[in-house]
Amino acid sequence: MPHINLPEGLQGIRAAMAFRPETAKPLNELVEVLLHAPNSLTPGERELIATYVSSLNDCYFCQTVHGAIAAAHLDGDEELVLRVKADFAHAAISEKLKALLVIAGKVQKGGKHVTTADVEGARKAGATDVEIHDTVLIAAAFCMYNRYVDGLDTWQPHDEELYRQRGRKTAEEGYVTMSREYLPQTK
Amino acid sequence: MPHINLPEGLQGIRAAMAFRPETAKPLNELVEVLLHAPNSLTPGERELIATYVSSLNDCYFCQTVHGAIAAAHLDGDEELVLRVKADFAHAAISEKLKALLVIAGKVQKGGKHVTTADVEGARKAGATDVEIHDTVLIAAAFCMYNRYVDGLDTWQPHDEELYRQRGRKTAEEGYVTMSREYLPQTK
Repeated sequence: MPHINLPEGLQGIRAAMAFRPETAKPLNELVEVLLHAPNSLTPGERELIATYVSSLNDCYFCQTVHGAIAAAHLDGDEELVLRVKADFAHAAISEKLKALLVIAGKVQKGGKHVTTADVEGARKAGATDVEIHDTVLIAAAFCMYNRYVDGLDTWQPHDEELYRQRGRKTAEEGYVTMSREYLPQTK
Repeated sequence: MPHINLPEGLQGIRAAMAFRPETAKPLNELVEVLLHAPNSLTPGERELIATYVSSLNDCYFCQTVHGAIAAAHLDGDEELVLRVKADFAHAAISEKLKALLVIAGKVQKGGKHVTTADVEGARKAGATDVEIHDTVLIAAAFCMYNRYVDGLDTWQPHDEELYRQRGRKTAEEGYVTMSREYLPQTK
């Protein structure tokens, strides 16, 4: 049972967003820019960063839905998503993404954990300043989304097929468009 | 020295926002709704929640600037801000705000730390569901802003008078208006 009286039948963050559309609007716009808008990091790479941080924060809803979105962007490769969560250093991803995941893991612990050496490592692997910036902000943002989802004790059904379907839809349509399903019309 | 090449002469989050206006827009809109827009919690109360969480995350910039904004809303009572950070249970604030700060402190540790008893405590002290929701989201959001500011190692000058001036201005004008000072014009 959620801690407050959230609308029924909506999972995870969707219930919280339907409860408070005023905050849902910037929350959706932020994740749209970070994960779905055009970027030199692919949507799959950015979703992997979000999934990894959500797994570190032990948020079932966020790691499962963003894992499903990542897989949808990566030709359905769910094994790769699991590998990144469990042991990204040995996953079949680029050295640049590995270096960015190191930074994301540090941000999850706290911003001061990020070192000059971490950032130099990412640069040597080819990361740009915008990519490093976006990695820091994706990791920081999921420290928010994860706490929001779990801090309200939202409903998080454990039916992986449901997340798969939603993953494919969000991968295609993005966050702002998807949010029209459950949010009242806002400007 | 910041980890990436941020614009010079802007402190804390302002440099990161000027570097990436696309993400600055929803970040400013979120904090505007949470801390400045009309709400049954006063702006002073909400700024105290933001300041308390930022102090738990040891973010100098955020706790100092939001502490200054809180003080500006509270007739300049800087002592009260310090007391809330150090020992809110014995500060001259309402029982409701104390119960909400308990929840905020749990969210800072992680969303799952919030208990039914914490939420019932807040309700007994008079908190509404929207107030509990907003407290959870303010605390979660500052776990993001704090990590963003420190994860990029932004410039954070230690001149309290500068934060006082900015605090008075932001308390009056709000976040979206203030951001026009350093952001390129966006929609």
